[in-house]
Amino acid sequence: MSPEKLAFVGGTGPEGLGLAIRFAAAGHAVVIGSRSAERAQEAAAKVRSKVPRAEVDGRLNEEAVREGEIVLVTIPFAGHRDTLKALAPAIGAKIVVDVVSPLAFGGRQIKALAVPEGSAAQQAQALLPQAAVAAAFHHLDAGSLMALEERLEADVLVCGDHPQAKLRTMALAEQIAGVRALDAGPLANSRYLEEFTVVLLSLNKNYRAHTTLRIEGIARAGGRPRRGGKPAQR
Amino acid sequence: MSPEKLAFVGGTGPEGLGLAIRFAAAGHAVVIGSRSAERAQEAAAKVRSKVPRAEVDGRLNEEAVREGEIVLVTIPFAGHRDTLKALAPAIGAKIVVDVVSPLAFGGRQIKALAVPEGSAAQQAQALLPQAAVAAAFHHLDAGSLMALEERLEADVLVCGDHPQAKLRTMALAEQIAGVRALDAGPLANSRYLEEFTVVLLSLNKNYRAHTTLRIEGIARAGGRPRRGGKPAQR
Repeated sequence: MSPEKLAFVGGTGPEGLGLAIRFAAAGHAVVIGSRSAERAQEAAAKVRSKVPRAEVDGRLNEEAVREGEIVLVTIPFAGHRDTLKALAPAIGAKIVVDVVSPLAFGGRQIKALAVPEGSAAQQAQALLPQAAVAAAFHHLDAGSLMALEERLEADVLVCGDHPQAKLRTMALAEQIAGVRALDAGPLANSRYLEEFTVVLLSLNKNYRAHTTLRIEGIARAGGRPRRGGKPAQR
Repeated sequence: MSPEKLAFVGGTGPEGLGLAIRFAAAGHAVVIGSRSAERAQEAAAKVRSKVPRAEVDGRLNEEAVREGEIVLVTIPFAGHRDTLKALAPAIGAKIVVDVVSPLAFGGRQIKALAVPEGSAAQQAQALLPQAAVAAAFHHLDAGSLMALEERLEADVLVCGDHPQAKLRTMALAEQIAGVRALDAGPLANSRYLEEFTVVLLSLNKNYRAHTTLRIEGIARAGGRPRRGGKPAQR
């Protein structure tokens, strides 16, 4: 996989920053997007402090997505709809990887929020009809991503209806040391991935842990989907 | 943990049968329930053929749950509401472990079914207000459970609002060789567990595999929840 320029919509939060650090370390050019150019540049400086050789910039979201070849969406769900609606012309037909889990943290319990489109990623696809949306990276712990010296032990589950977008997202995921990407089916499955984040956060609370997911039963060597990434039928 | 008598509501299907075999092998007395006494006895004979020393019987569902100390619900979701409603007097205040994932297999894709109560396990708790319902075992592959010579590699995520029911379910799960039980929070989280079954079935299809789940980031030795099974607050 040749290095691609990756744009982060909302790359100043821990999840976006963590992924940006890992992908910069893997040799990708990274553009951190934010609603504030100043905060974008601060985040870019953080990436550079972890990965001194990084090719990284901070920009307004719209400029960031224009520059990027693949767009990663790492904003809080509260701004998901409005932000993507505004960015649709700039994103056009690019590959969009939605990382957002729509969660409510009110009270003592974390809950998944109902999304009219089904999931955050399905909402992204509805708002960006030209784009090829995949959903991935929901279950990687932000703190672990930022601790570049830590090797992750995680499977990244990738959903999507565009085979090429899915395969490129899977290839991207596997550039993070210790990560295996798995084809988790169509974009309609993204809701189950997004909502499962609640379970991992519950485990983190109960065990004071930073949990990630592993799937047992798929040989690591054989971890390629059948028939070019499209879910096969029985 | 002293052996308990376990009753299976709908123990003739692969998931119930697989769990019954594993628990019989661990020394529990098992009562397989079914709508048909004949099919219950056939299933009991299957358990006995795998575990010759098993203390196992086949009964009508109602007789089975009267005999059992812990009731495991392993019926298809289609019959979930009516079956539990009818069994409520016989179940009374027992511990009920709901294993059901409400899924629709129509067309090319598997989907999760919406449940008015939130999840199958929450529906069970609503129908059985005296009982202490936990949700668990959704992600263990039925075929692997039945292959007693196979060691599983899986974490069983357990949800529930009754701490004692949750702890006993966790202890039960860990009697299956290779299984670690984890406290995955309140019963409201059961929906995310049930629906995640769709993802594992998609992976099974895509990779011709029998997948199970592992959680990374919790030391196996430290795999005990804080404060007696109740989710702790930060």
